[in-house]
Amino acid sequence: MKIGFIGLGKMGTPMAQNLIAAGHKVTAYNRTRAKAETLKGAQVAESPAEAGRGAEVVFTMLPDDPALEEVVFGEQGLLKGMNKDAVHVSSSTISVALSRRLDDAHREHGQRYLAAPVLGRPEAAAAAKLFVLAAGADEVMDRCASLLDVLGQEVITIGEKPEQANVAKLSCNFLIASLIEAVGEAVALARKHGIDPKDFIELLTSTIFNAPAYKTYGGFIAEEKYEPAGFPLRLGAKDMRLAIQAAEGVQMPMPLASLLRDHALAGMANGIGDLDWSALAKVAARNAGLE
Amino acid sequence: MKIGFIGLGKMGTPMAQNLIAAGHKVTAYNRTRAKAETLKGAQVAESPAEAGRGAEVVFTMLPDDPALEEVVFGEQGLLKGMNKDAVHVSSSTISVALSRRLDDAHREHGQRYLAAPVLGRPEAAAAAKLFVLAAGADEVMDRCASLLDVLGQEVITIGEKPEQANVAKLSCNFLIASLIEAVGEAVALARKHGIDPKDFIELLTSTIFNAPAYKTYGGFIAEEKYEPAGFPLRLGAKDMRLAIQAAEGVQMPMPLASLLRDHALAGMANGIGDLDWSALAKVAARNAGLE
Amino acid sequence: MKIGFIGLGKMGTPMAQNLIAAGHKVTAYNRTRAKAETLKGAQVAESPAEAGRGAEVVFTMLPDDPALEEVVFGEQGLLKGMNKDAVHVSSSTISVALSRRLDDAHREHGQRYLAAPVLGRPEAAAAAKLFVLAAGADEVMDRCASLLDVLGQEVITIGEKPEQANVAKLSCNFLIASLIEAVGEAVALARKHGIDPKDFIELLTSTIFNAPAYKTYGGFIAEEKYEPAGFPLRLGAKDMRLAIQAAEGVQMPMPLASLLRDHALAGMANGIGDLDWSALAKVAARNAGLE
Amino acid sequence: MKIGFIGLGKMGTPMAQNLIAAGHKVTAYNRTRAKAETLKGAQVAESPAEAGRGAEVVFTMLPDDPALEEVVFGEQGLLKGMNKDAVHVSSSTISVALSRRLDDAHREHGQRYLAAPVLGRPEAAAAAKLFVLAAGADEVMDRCASLLDVLGQEVITIGEKPEQANVAKLSCNFLIASLIEAVGEAVALARKHGIDPKDFIELLTSTIFNAPAYKTYGGFIAEEKYEPAGFPLRLGAKDMRLAIQAAEGVQMPMPLASLLRDHALAGMANGIGDLDWSALAKVAARNAGLE
Repeated sequence: MKIGFIGLGKMGTPMAQNLIAAGHKVTAYNRTRAKAETLKGAQVAESPAEAGRGAEVVFTMLPDDPALEEVVFGEQGLLKGMNKDAVHVSSSTISVALSRRLDDAHREHGQRYLAAPVLGRPEAAAAAKLFVLAAGADEVMDRCASLLDVLGQEVITIGEKPEQANVAKLSCNFLIASLIEAVGEAVALARKHGIDPKDFIELLTSTIFNAPAYKTYGGFIAEEKYEPAGFPLRLGAKDMRLAIQAAEGVQMPMPLASLLRDHALAGMANGIGDLDWSALAKVAARNAGLE
Repeated sequence: MKIGFIGLGKMGTPMAQNLIAAGHKVTAYNRTRAKAETLKGAQVAESPAEAGRGAEVVFTMLPDDPALEEVVFGEQGLLKGMNKDAVHVSSSTISVALSRRLDDAHREHGQRYLAAPVLGRPEAAAAAKLFVLAAGADEVMDRCASLLDVLGQEVITIGEKPEQANVAKLSCNFLIASLIEAVGEAVALARKHGIDPKDFIELLTSTIFNAPAYKTYGGFIAEEKYEPAGFPLRLGAKDMRLAIQAAEGVQMPMPLASLLRDHALAGMANGIGDLDWSALAKVAARNAGLE
Repeated sequence: MKIGFIGLGKMGTPMAQNLIAAGHKVTAYNRTRAKAETLKGAQVAESPAEAGRGAEVVFTMLPDDPALEEVVFGEQGLLKGMNKDAVHVSSSTISVALSRRLDDAHREHGQRYLAAPVLGRPEAAAAAKLFVLAAGADEVMDRCASLLDVLGQEVITIGEKPEQANVAKLSCNFLIASLIEAVGEAVALARKHGIDPKDFIELLTSTIFNAPAYKTYGGFIAEEKYEPAGFPLRLGAKDMRLAIQAAEGVQMPMPLASLLRDHALAGMANGIGDLDWSALAKVAARNAGLE
Repeated sequence: MKIGFIGLGKMGTPMAQNLIAAGHKVTAYNRTRAKAETLKGAQVAESPAEAGRGAEVVFTMLPDDPALEEVVFGEQGLLKGMNKDAVHVSSSTISVALSRRLDDAHREHGQRYLAAPVLGRPEAAAAAKLFVLAAGADEVMDRCASLLDVLGQEVITIGEKPEQANVAKLSCNFLIASLIEAVGEAVALARKHGIDPKDFIELLTSTIFNAPAYKTYGGFIAEEKYEPAGFPLRLGAKDMRLAIQAAEGVQMPMPLASLLRDHALAGMANGIGDLDWSALAKVAARNAGLE
């Protein structure tokens, strides 16, 4: 299939590479052109519009709302470049409000829109082991199914409104941040009582918290290893903000998300915004007088 | 071995039964005598002191600090009944401060003390599938090892100070309550965006939260099934208080534990203290206008 | 002086009336024209641009960011209507980010901008007893001084950057909401201990909390009188959001603002968003099982 | 009148001195005898019991629950020393639970009990400008009225149950801590936006927050002057704990008190527990990256 791919960061690059490996014809665009050129087997576009031109499906994988807005609504944006009836698959972690706006805008331009954010860190993207959370009209989903299959180990359909996939993705990130905070506070308590953090994490993950997320993040926290940042704390703070905004949109509070965001901001104010978001545990340790 | 067992509630009864089944001679005491009499193959004592008399090891499994204090320090308490060098194994979820006090008191009386709280719900106790978190002097641990093996699928040694096992147990309960809160808020967000809670939990537990705790509690929350209460919300509130007190003892905050406790108290104030503690999700739903 | 006045709600109407009474020639615009027509002695404009045309100073007093953005940046907006060198005085409680953006936009159009939000409820506006918090270039401030004097009992200069006045105003609202929350929780505690709320508020305000804000809001809370809403809870929630955003803009958390906002959202989710914001105390009462 | 006075700290000493100055015969006891000897015109007792012997009224002014428990229930405690029908006036800030227990214990011993905690810092105690919050049986209140009048500018009767005065006192401290936190967060926000903290506090206290508490604490915060500690942060943390316990006793949360306590604990963990409790603002500043 002829595909556009926009956004070649830590996640986008391996995703695009997997699409190429599966035999698709990919035209890539990245704001910093050099990154697009590292993509083997792809053509490089000069603008989002050019990446979209002639493609049946265009993927976007960008760090935040403003970046995606620029790519879609900008002067040389996707809205102008995409064919009628072509599909924009947005895999970025963006706000519910923007997802709704994109759905409307593409429909007005006779184009289609699918939200398909993913769960997994860069290693999982490379190994095509992502979980893809997809939402949108059935017919659009069908057209993209084989492509989404290439990206991950499983495609999970959330609903017919694209924004529902973004709600699901933000919820997952909220749940991960919650476990980081909880483990961070518990590890601080353990340390102050003379319990070795590694033993403590081993205890947790060998009993009732025998899940990949506890192993991964618990391991980072026990070893105080917050670099390299698979996902930096400042992006975690952003996602907590997006979760809170999604909650505000349906008029409800998320008090735990507020707490997580405030701790992330305190971390950022104290210079650790570029560490992995498991460094929320550093904020807990600091509040315990352990730093 | 000659064993005393005090506290025959939902957890204590199957634990005592397993010790009897393993061939030990058990003398049981319960405040409400009728419950002790249901224990097949046990002798019934009239007081904690009597249950302790002549036993090599005495187990206690009681709901809270005051109950255990009464059993140990009361007029007919364990301190008076236990032999020199006999071991008190405390499996209750109690405060770190009381655990330390018990260790001191037994030592002063020439007796020994081991903290061995357990992870698992009543079904796990019956199936001898508990995880036993044990802490105390090595020599005491060795003497009790075969008994602890009878109770659970694994005995995990936390350290040489008994109170460390209580810290570990309280931390586990804190982590479970954290995940209940997080899932509760996320499910409320999902519901208000038209996502089916069961699908949402299925999504979580089939991807990155593939752990027993998420399946058990996520299931209760998705189905809004908070009865029967494996562990009632009011005891959850108590354990959050104990975690906060343990933290205060080493001069540190646990902001997430504070949030959990406040939500549990709001639930109790509104009449749901006897539901399962997964009903923390009901408080989140109420705050979202869903009840 | 020839003046434009845009936004004739509960606050704007008495402010505009006071400017007319002081002898100024006012052209008023309101989205719902009928409200503008009730203003005695004013001309009515058909658009913001028209209200701005020929005026030396244009006041805006609108409920939120989107309303002010429409008035300034819209097709018939102020940017297009205002004379070169004329001053836009923004008295609305708006975001720090929008205030900065307005400053830039007016400068680009050869116009001037002053932020002058006010402290006080509608009664104070009518009595010209507002406190005016003003920030902007000295020269612009001088030109508007006599007008600001008409509106309030005191004009307080915050700094030379307009957005600083917005920070100050948001901080004041944050402080008021904080005292409402604190008094609300304390009154709930008092009530559950059999202390009469009115006696309790009398105690506070006759001793160390002898300030207008405690008397006003404490009175509403003691009497559970949340209507008419001088300032509705949903606008209070909005202002807490703006305070949190201002904090995020300089990379810091405001955990108390997060708590206030979450409680306001819980109130809104449960149908009390149109009550006075002192109804935060209703949320506290509900959490205490008192409703 | 023949009076006993126990506890000669920063508050107790001036209070006792005022009673002596009013012509009463005071027998004083302090754990560190030297302090009692500095009290001019008083006899020094060797034990609480001795201070109580023969006195019509015994005042206690101690830092916390354990200190007062020792003084009342100890081997040479007040219960043993006080005459039948003599009155124990407890001015300490203690738990609601202990106040209730004292009421019961004195009644069992044929003695009387009045709770009369005070509002005000040491300077106010010296100037007899305290506010006295009194609760107890009318008849007991009448007997002590003239003495309480000596201590403060006003005696405020809260109710007939002594513990109600403790609830009122804890609520006042909670309200003060709330305003410290709110001002602390607002000042951090102002500082990060380039607003001078002194100007900001001047703005607040000259407009809607024209109350002594805002002036006192706002001044400390603006000048970052946290020594000498009129009331140390660690005692503030204790009082927040007592407020939370009082709330738990009537089954309700106090989420703002939880937040205050957690911030105080973070401060203590980082070495500022002996500064004045207005140093809560230092915790806010630290979270904002300002320290």
